Amino acid sequence: MSKYWSPQVHDLTPYVPGEQPREQLIKLNTNENPYPPAPAVEQVLREFNASDLRRYPDPSSTSLRESLATTFNVTLGEVFVGNGSDEVLALAFQAFFRQNKPLLLPEISYSFYPVYCRMYGIASQSVPLTDDWQVDLEAFGNDNGGIIFANPNAPTGHGHGRKAIAALLERNPHSVVLVDEAYVDFGGESAVPLIHQYPNLVVTGTFSKSRSLAGIRLGYAVASRELIEGLERIKDSFNSYPIDRLAEQIGIAALSDPSYFDECRTRVITTREQTRDRMAALGFEILPSQTNFVLAKHLTHDAGELFIGLREHGILVRHFNTDALRDYLRISIGTDAEMDSLIEALECLCR
Amino acid sequence: MSKYWSPQVHDLTPYVPGEQPREQLIKLNTNENPYPPAPAVEQVLREFNASDLRRYPDPSSTSLRESLATTFNVTLGEVFVGNGSDEVLALAFQAFFRQNKPLLLPEISYSFYPVYCRMYGIASQSVPLTDDWQVDLEAFGNDNGGIIFANPNAPTGHGHGRKAIAALLERNPHSVVLVDEAYVDFGGESAVPLIHQYPNLVVTGTFSKSRSLAGIRLGYAVASRELIEGLERIKDSFNSYPIDRLAEQIGIAALSDPSYFDECRTRVITTREQTRDRMAALGFEILPSQTNFVLAKHLTHDAGELFIGLREHGILVRHFNTDALRDYLRISIGTDAEMDSLIEALECLCR
Repeated sequence: MSKYWSPQVHDLTPYVPGEQPREQLIKLNTNENPYPPAPAVEQVLREFNASDLRRYPDPSSTSLRESLATTFNVTLGEVFVGNGSDEVLALAFQAFFRQNKPLLLPEISYSFYPVYCRMYGIASQSVPLTDDWQVDLEAFGNDNGGIIFANPNAPTGHGHGRKAIAALLERNPHSVVLVDEAYVDFGGESAVPLIHQYPNLVVTGTFSKSRSLAGIRLGYAVASRELIEGLERIKDSFNSYPIDRLAEQIGIAALSDPSYFDECRTRVITTREQTRDRMAALGFEILPSQTNFVLAKHLTHDAGELFIGLREHGILVRHFNTDALRDYLRISIGTDAEMDSLIEALECLCR
Repeated sequence: MSKYWSPQVHDLTPYVPGEQPREQLIKLNTNENPYPPAPAVEQVLREFNASDLRRYPDPSSTSLRESLATTFNVTLGEVFVGNGSDEVLALAFQAFFRQNKPLLLPEISYSFYPVYCRMYGIASQSVPLTDDWQVDLEAFGNDNGGIIFANPNAPTGHGHGRKAIAALLERNPHSVVLVDEAYVDFGGESAVPLIHQYPNLVVTGTFSKSRSLAGIRLGYAVASRELIEGLERIKDSFNSYPIDRLAEQIGIAALSDPSYFDECRTRVITTREQTRDRMAALGFEILPSQTNFVLAKHLTHDAGELFIGLREHGILVRHFNTDALRDYLRISIGTDAEMDSLIEALECLCR
């Protein structure tokens, strides 16, 4: 604490990201992709003219937005990009959710949402999940200052189909509904096509997961022109140049290779389903997942102890120390070889 | 305007960055460096393992901060990094300047400061420059919620020495003083060594100007541990991973070559002084500059018309359409050949 800080700084509880260990571990704790980015990304690095870095980037990241617009079959004005979807989300909270009514969000979802609420002085109201741990879309009342949830949800892994999202939008025409699709490419159904029908829908996404670019920090939002303009106004007041020249070209390269993209996500999905079966055979109860992770609870072994045991076997997974999640481990899907090591270690620990 | 925006969004006046033209122009409008970044930067591009981009970066950018700490002869805990000094400044406004008393700033300085004040609801009070367009340090009263200025100042070019900054800090021990040193490497004197004596001093800097990396978005702050912790708390609430893996390595490479750095900035300084003499001979009044730009006013020709005339000659400079600056052009220092073209065009236009 310091007398020089703004008073609000004293109350902040920073988000704790998953550990980035310096030692060699099998890293299954932050939902990174086990496969490298598209080969075109390496080509950008090898061929990029370093001298161009002396120039500011295009403040509106037009080339990258054009690639995204083509990918999602929307117009340039319906796409916004930011320095990771965390930044896009933070800007969206400022642009849309500072209202007189509370923001609605699932009781269990991405842990950054409540952090942004505190940060921007936004009142929020948590909506419990259904009994089978799905986001309870029916329970979101329409008297609100906005609705946000991850779909598929994290760390639970369940995703709603486009029809269910459309029904929510029909019931809720007066405030912004933000659907965070960080994990959608691993088996979910994207709500992006609904933006033409619902001007209050924002869909956010990231290059960190299915595009294998967590290290480069690229995220985006797709929405009606009027919502994108709200994001642009906030961004331009804060930082005119969010996407650097290299990141922009790397993002374009990652989008340029749909068959590599499909190959990688299919491999992740296949490995995930094998992992679920193998863990179930070891006595785990595992939620269905449309993401690149599984949330698993052992019927007899304590999750905290398994977390420590796995770490001793050189495997890092995620254990959230909250009431709702204390009994679970969140395990990112790695390569088949990494999952073999996981299963071997679990065989040892769950004996 | 949209009914879906947060009410504050309606009042925002976005900052207008200098144009980034798509056509081939001699670009002297955004104070970019005319020389490429250090050769080690190119080496990073050629050798970087693209597969590493699938991993999140180090959330605390320790390696880059270590390089900056060595460069500035401070400790790791006294260094903060961000996605361009614009981001560092935005975080500093949130961390330090949301106080009950107004922030003091020069009437003419970086135009982003008032934008941040509006953005974060910070009251501010403008302090006029001295008659010879220097930041009037004596005029900053000590009953304030903070003080911010660029040193050297932009777009005026004058810089105060370390002694004058120390005297200001002696008079103002109760609030944060932020010295924005974006341009200091072109002839100014850095206040960084004062951070050990004054726990309320923050010095910010950028890789965009003297390090030739405007395209990569890297900025930093150097301050006492207690102020850096304030910045970290805000950053961690917003975006845990601001510096991407490539940007971090590129920044380290740029800092690794002090002799190349000295060579480039010396060339810019030499070219600047020659440009001042040559423009003076054409009837310009030019403020002394410790930066990589000059602010110049022609004794008889209208600045707005000269701006248009230069553009017709394929040369882009900056003309601010404000009462105080309407008579001036801000011209970034390019290569000697670019400045030859500028002088030729001006000879033509000022005949």
